[in-house]
Amino acid sequence: MTHFADAHAQAQFAADKMKKNNLFTTERLFCDVYCFEVGQTQTPHTHSGSDKVYYVIDGRARIRVGDDERDVGPGTAALAPADVTHAVTNPGPGRLKVLVLMAPKP
Amino acid sequence: MTHFADAHAQAQFAADKMKKNNLFTTERLFCDVYCFEVGQTQTPHTHSGSDKVYYVIDGRARIRVGDDERDVGPGTAALAPADVTHAVTNPGPGRLKVLVLMAPKP
Repeated sequence: MTHFADAHAQAQFAADKMKKNNLFTTERLFCDVYCFEVGQTQTPHTHSGSDKVYYVIDGRARIRVGDDERDVGPGTAALAPADVTHAVTNPGPGRLKVLVLMAPKP
Repeated sequence: MTHFADAHAQAQFAADKMKKNNLFTTERLFCDVYCFEVGQTQTPHTHSGSDKVYYVIDGRARIRVGDDERDVGPGTAALAPADVTHAVTNPGPGRLKVLVLMAPKP
């Protein structure tokens, strides 16, 4: 397996819904790039026993963790601990790329 | 605890050696921003039972994983699986910021 990945080169978008692009998967974690066209959403959900970190690469993101919802840009990281509801929306005006790491892999 | 962090705002550098700035810590993972002045290094090391992901935010990084060493820039991610030797150096010419996620927390 390769140990290197280019997040931008692997960032594919889809017209119908946000797209998850996997960079790495191990027994302990996965690392994806989530790509959102304007208006696309990852609907509110929770994971039991796994923590997730979002890191905004490009664009603007409306990230909700629990009751805390913020509009943030590149350089912002968000932690969604196990069992805490979280969601992401692209409010625009441009495309959104988010690095996502989750441990352990659900 | 807060669920949001600004990686750039929390990116502190140190003159004597590369500096680790923690963004989040849970039982399952940690998320740091490592800051390297030109020439600073995280020396080769391994972790048993934990996988690490590097993601270059700003600057140039010379990342080694096993026998694979590459000079990479922003947007490149690298996976250092458990028990595989890895290291990072800032070859310059500018400062280097790397997002680091490790699971589980060693």
